[in-house]
Amino acid sequence: MVRPPKLVILKTPVESGNIHSPAFIVNEQICRSNISRMAEKARLNKLIFRPHFKTHQSVEIGEWFRAEGVNAITVSSVSMAHKFADAGWGDITIAFPLNIREIDEINQLAGKVSLNVLIDMPEQISALSTSLKHPVGFYIKIDLGYHRAGIEPANTELIERIIGYSKSGQLTFKGFLTHSGNTYQASGKQEIIAIHESASQELSKLKRKYQSDNPGIIVSCGDTPSCSLAEDFSGIDEIRPGNFVFYDLMQLRIGSCKFNEIAAAVVCPVVSVYPERNEALIYGGAVHLSKEAIINADGSRNYGLIIPFVDGRWQSPMGDDWLVSLSQEHGIFKTESTWAKSLSAGDLVAVIPVHSCLSADLLRSR
Amino acid sequence: MVRPPKLVILKTPVESGNIHSPAFIVNEQICRSNISRMAEKARLNKLIFRPHFKTHQSVEIGEWFRAEGVNAITVSSVSMAHKFADAGWGDITIAFPLNIREIDEINQLAGKVSLNVLIDMPEQISALSTSLKHPVGFYIKIDLGYHRAGIEPANTELIERIIGYSKSGQLTFKGFLTHSGNTYQASGKQEIIAIHESASQELSKLKRKYQSDNPGIIVSCGDTPSCSLAEDFSGIDEIRPGNFVFYDLMQLRIGSCKFNEIAAAVVCPVVSVYPERNEALIYGGAVHLSKEAIINADGSRNYGLIIPFVDGRWQSPMGDDWLVSLSQEHGIFKTESTWAKSLSAGDLVAVIPVHSCLSADLLRSR
Repeated sequence: MVRPPKLVILKTPVESGNIHSPAFIVNEQICRSNISRMAEKARLNKLIFRPHFKTHQSVEIGEWFRAEGVNAITVSSVSMAHKFADAGWGDITIAFPLNIREIDEINQLAGKVSLNVLIDMPEQISALSTSLKHPVGFYIKIDLGYHRAGIEPANTELIERIIGYSKSGQLTFKGFLTHSGNTYQASGKQEIIAIHESASQELSKLKRKYQSDNPGIIVSCGDTPSCSLAEDFSGIDEIRPGNFVFYDLMQLRIGSCKFNEIAAAVVCPVVSVYPERNEALIYGGAVHLSKEAIINADGSRNYGLIIPFVDGRWQSPMGDDWLVSLSQEHGIFKTESTWAKSLSAGDLVAVIPVHSCLSADLLRSR
Repeated sequence: MVRPPKLVILKTPVESGNIHSPAFIVNEQICRSNISRMAEKARLNKLIFRPHFKTHQSVEIGEWFRAEGVNAITVSSVSMAHKFADAGWGDITIAFPLNIREIDEINQLAGKVSLNVLIDMPEQISALSTSLKHPVGFYIKIDLGYHRAGIEPANTELIERIIGYSKSGQLTFKGFLTHSGNTYQASGKQEIIAIHESASQELSKLKRKYQSDNPGIIVSCGDTPSCSLAEDFSGIDEIRPGNFVFYDLMQLRIGSCKFNEIAAAVVCPVVSVYPERNEALIYGGAVHLSKEAIINADGSRNYGLIIPFVDGRWQSPMGDDWLVSLSQEHGIFKTESTWAKSLSAGDLVAVIPVHSCLSADLLRSR
């Protein structure tokens, strides 16, 4: 029986003849250089570097981090924590508020590794405290304007109720953590830096307020835009960027990276061309790229940048060749450039995905 | 090691205690009744019923179709065709234009089952004709306004070049096929029926034009909105709806189904509640639900309807409780109803997904 290859990670240069269906490919050199640059920035700024592994979810790429001296990681789910614990990672923060339905799985993890969880409701830590069999550290998740998860810094009543569980049984309060996801909606470097600085100040204010009673607490932040663009990390103890390992079109758009720092692409076969409407069809749809989109100035949606794939490597963009629609398996792109107009059935193109985390997640299990 | 269960298919009533992470669940009774109703409609209208299996991708649900007398199916990828060939399906149409990079895999399939492919470019069939080792039927994909794939019906020069490959070697021209995906953007039953009738007329015109030279050719159409709402199928020989097996929020919105015909939901744990902003966090994000959204009248995006999950079954909606944002693992919903405001950490809710095909695809491999 023929099945598409399990595309956990294909590295450039890729043997083009082997690509029959959408394939997630990584440029190891760029990827290692992204890792190395961020590790160096952390060292220079005396920051704990706890990279988020949700982007790549790859044991192999994890080893590239280990080669840079990384030994503490962040994940976004309990199952991901188990995967990396099995791969030999011994210090893991699950950067997702505690799901009390997973306390059994958390107990098993806590028996094996040094584990930190996130708390943003007293009910979560109350449930955890009564069933924990092994030591677990907890961070209080602070909401500094992204309004996804977390407690507002002014809500000291809630914060103090949660801190109250520290040292009772197996639980230790480790500090304050935030994710400034609002940098993804920022319109440039200046706005990103402003969000980053305000977050640093708010978190270090909390640290100062609570550190005498809780010595050793730290503050942790660091989304990819902030960590890529900021130079000043005063007030911060730990950064947890994830996306920078690959970057993507969204990061390019908001200015977090240059094109030649993008380390991943999805290679797709051209299936048909429709010269009468300046469009072409690729085998590559929502189940490979996700429906994450960039909104163009005119309100239209852009699902990925189409670029040449030559000699097993993606090349520089040739023009404004964008995916304008995606269905389950189909991707349609506008052939704006002369290069794109010359494509024919059976050619391969590379797609720079809008959101590499989602594309990597979709293609890792196929 | 703990892993989330492989959620290929969980049937209601589900044992709630077993749900720790997002789970795709199916109400078998509703699902079988959707299948049975569509099979009956096909019988009454003397149509070949070739359901699209891309929605469920489940061998078990496939058997529910077989129990209704179905023996011919549609899939959207070569790998899906292999999967269902292995499960004993002997008559398969791959309703995606021929990807010439997959000709080897197509040859292997054609040696095992009665296989049909889609052609919308002479280059595709030319490549196929020189390498085919077993008989394959082909349909010409016609574009009737959706502008995703296909040849415009007026382009008889292209159509005739493709038909020219029939009976040369292993290839047989089987007829004309379309997918009126534009019904998904329709604003009500009347517009859907108008699209359906126009498609039927255009395809049967093509059939009349070419059937004397190609006896036995058929016309095939049938997206879920058309097949759910139309009563008149004159001019059509075959229907291929897929989504109707589950339906979803999008279909409910465009009027293809009633709420009590929706056969699938994603059950998610409530992780946190934020009463100060009338929002709550579920464990359920883009990697479980996809980023497919319905656009509300005010331009905001709606990623799924939150409803109660009681005694292992989802219930009727209690109010306007919608997912307003999704990231990789997080879903945030507005707690508009009194019911939603009373939820707390550890409760389970059901999400009616916007697009059940994508949710089923995401959750089948976890």
